[in-house]
Amino acid sequence: MHFDLFSLLPEVFPPYLNSSMMKRAQEKGLLSFGVHNIRDWTQDKHHVTDDNPYGGGGGMIMKPEPIFDAVEDVIGSPPDCPIILLTPQGRVFNQDEAQRLAREPRLALLCGRYEGVDERVRAHLVTDEISIGDYVLTGGELPALILIDALTRLIPGVLGAENGAANDSHATGLLEGAHYTRPAEYRGWDVPAILRSGDHGKVAQWRREQALIRTFERRPEMLEKTELSKKDKVFLEKIKKGKA
Amino acid sequence: MHFDLFSLLPEVFPPYLNSSMMKRAQEKGLLSFGVHNIRDWTQDKHHVTDDNPYGGGGGMIMKPEPIFDAVEDVIGSPPDCPIILLTPQGRVFNQDEAQRLAREPRLALLCGRYEGVDERVRAHLVTDEISIGDYVLTGGELPALILIDALTRLIPGVLGAENGAANDSHATGLLEGAHYTRPAEYRGWDVPAILRSGDHGKVAQWRREQALIRTFERRPEMLEKTELSKKDKVFLEKIKKGKA
Repeated sequence: MHFDLFSLLPEVFPPYLNSSMMKRAQEKGLLSFGVHNIRDWTQDKHHVTDDNPYGGGGGMIMKPEPIFDAVEDVIGSPPDCPIILLTPQGRVFNQDEAQRLAREPRLALLCGRYEGVDERVRAHLVTDEISIGDYVLTGGELPALILIDALTRLIPGVLGAENGAANDSHATGLLEGAHYTRPAEYRGWDVPAILRSGDHGKVAQWRREQALIRTFERRPEMLEKTELSKKDKVFLEKIKKGKA
Repeated sequence: MHFDLFSLLPEVFPPYLNSSMMKRAQEKGLLSFGVHNIRDWTQDKHHVTDDNPYGGGGGMIMKPEPIFDAVEDVIGSPPDCPIILLTPQGRVFNQDEAQRLAREPRLALLCGRYEGVDERVRAHLVTDEISIGDYVLTGGELPALILIDALTRLIPGVLGAENGAANDSHATGLLEGAHYTRPAEYRGWDVPAILRSGDHGKVAQWRREQALIRTFERRPEMLEKTELSKKDKVFLEKIKKGKA
């Protein structure tokens, strides 16, 4: 999978892109990046990328010309891949979106800064707008990295079978329950005996139940959107009656 | 405001923390950071920070000892500030949470990696768990940066009055409408005449209406949670009838 990143702060990307999982994915040839500084496509002497908004008011707006020129130069016109603007006005990103986008061989990610981008970029250049959550950030750089991280995990071969992403919170439609590792006792707090029992069936059942409990306590609305077995439903009834 | 970051990948933070708004906020003395490598608090020869999960299954779990030691060493025990674990199982972060947390003088942010942290960290060390959205990531580092970015914007004095955050998407409970800057005409696409009229009252009304239209089209559920004037409601009725 190839990502083209368009930004005014290209220097913030490499440290994260070259760390950990993403580094290994690049070494395996499963992942590649182009990081493009929008400023390189300005035509004026002062390399201006933003200007005051028409109609007045606070904040600066990113000018359309260097953005169009950068994206069209790198991606081509018409584009042969989705061009995603990271913006709080976009569709809210979630694990289903990640699954869908991870099937693309190439994505262009456009990171806004300041008050936002000129509307003509939104209307005539980008093909998709995505928000990573309902909060205000300084720019689209972190959201772009979030998107890349979430998608890279889903590229076949990036995570070993051992670290499979299938049981992670949100991948199953439930929050994950508790995990424990050594030591068996720490400061007087013990690992639950069932996890040390060696009974794989019971461990699996306990984990499912813990996930149901945690989801019920913290994000009950998630239970309505996920597929539950008969056994799950019986257990949920117990939770609701305070008997679990 | 001071942030203490606890992570196994401390090298990913500085490039973003020392860029743009956050750099300026630090120069003004409004923002400071401590970046702590959890690995520095391991006691064994190989500096092991993770181990297999009890009960088997995929993924590695972050061990409790170095995390407890690192946080207690830096923050003290009992802690004198919130200790936030970034985790998909946490409360979902939004602009209201950002407002609430921005009132704290100090926050400790604990970044999980791998399959997650030992449950005893969650139960006995952290005071708060926050998720930035319903998707699976490789670690808490990007979520921690998201939190810092969203909170820093709200520290008085960080953004000038010119760049005030009050009208941003989600800060008003609505998505922002369209913004335009020069050129007035680009590739045949014009800036709306009203924005060039010089009539501030009409511009303000147009912007409010554009925000209502965009929110209605993209995130109608937000309209139910925000305060609307009589004028807003009349305009919304027009939108619903297709007459706006």
